[in-house]
Order: sequence, then C-alpha cells, then structure tokens
Amino acid sequence: MSQFDNVSVVKKANVYFDGKVTSRTVVFEDGTKVTLGIMLPGEYEFGTGVKEIMDIQAGELSVLLPGNDEWQDITEPTKFEVPANASFKLKVRTVTDYICSYLS
Amino acid sequence: MSQFDNVSVVKKANVYFDGKVTSRTVVFEDGTKVTLGIMLPGEYEFGTGVKEIMDIQAGELSVLLPGNDEWQDITEPTKFEVPANASFKLKVRTVTDYICSYLS
Repeated sequence: MSQFDNVSVVKKANVYFDGKVTSRTVVFEDGTKVTLGIMLPGEYEFGTGVKEIMDIQAGELSVLLPGNDEWQDITEPTKFEVPANASFKLKVRTVTDYICSYLS
Repeated sequence: MSQFDNVSVVKKANVYFDGKVTSRTVVFEDGTKVTLGIMLPGEYEFGTGVKEIMDIQAGELSVLLPGNDEWQDITEPTKFEVPANASFKLKVRTVTDYICSYLS
C-alpha cells in the first residue's frame, strides 16, 4: 500500500531541530495517528510518550535504542520499536523518510 | 479548517534540493492534489506544469514571480499564484511551511 486512504491530515507541520526534522500528522478514522517525517543529516535525541514504531522508508542512519549499548546501523528500509516513556538517539547520514506510528 | 479530511496521503516524501525542500502529496476524493511542504533556508528555483497556488502557512521569504522584476517579501501567512509552465524563484530566510495547490 503506497498511500493512506480515508484519513485526515493536519495542515501545519511539526517542526523540530530548526527544521532539520519535520513531520505531518495523519489521523485515521479510528482516531489513531501516524506522522510522516523527514530527517536531514544530523544527530538527534527523541523522547517517547507512548510506544512508537519507526518505519524507515528511505535513508541511512544509526539508532541507539533505550537500554542498548550498541548503535544499530540502518541502510535499507526497516522498522524498529521504541518503548513508551523512553528516549532514543539517531545519527542520520542521508535524508531519511519515515513513518512513525503511536501505539497506546 | 486546520486539517484536510477524507483524503489520501502518499507515504513516500517528495525530496528536492538534498532534502532542503520536501513535501507530502495529499489527494482529495475528486482526484485533485495538494502538497504540504517544508522549505529550509536557501535559494531555490521551481518550475510549474499547471497553475499553482502557494499558501505560505509560516516562514519568512522573498519570491520573484515570472515576469516580475522585483522580489516580493513575505513575512506573514499569505498566498500567491504562479502561472502554468513558468518558473519562479524563492529566497527562504526561515523554515517555511506551505501548501501548494495544483489547478488544471
């Protein structure tokens, strides 16, 4: 499925890190949300509220997940999960296109 | 209206200028499209196919419209129209959040 159908999209962007990370909020009929985001090269730390699934559609980056000592390299489309109320770090090497799902 | 309802959203981002300009494609039930985009500071030239309406939601920039000699400063939310099969230039000074509508 290359697109989300029957959704609402918030017009205003979410902007972080001086615009190096931006996203758009998509709301499904059942009220669940995802964000479609872009990360430019850089190093970032994010905190979660609820559990998140990060679906990397394109880009090369490394991720340090909470409780891990080792950075995991991502060089092709993949997904990873981040627990609720946690923080994770990213080193983004190329323009990264992601979908973040919020699970509650 | 702060969001578009009953739309489809393409999952993959549109990426231009090494990611300094990115957008998401939103498709309405009648098949018309808009893109929701972000431009980081920089200078850009764009070409149009069909007529476009650029709705600047946030950001400070200057625009040189086709056939004009003078740059127009944009410091608050505003819209401008670009004719079909034309090119226009932008000098973006702060992170700019826009909606581009395509008229055919």
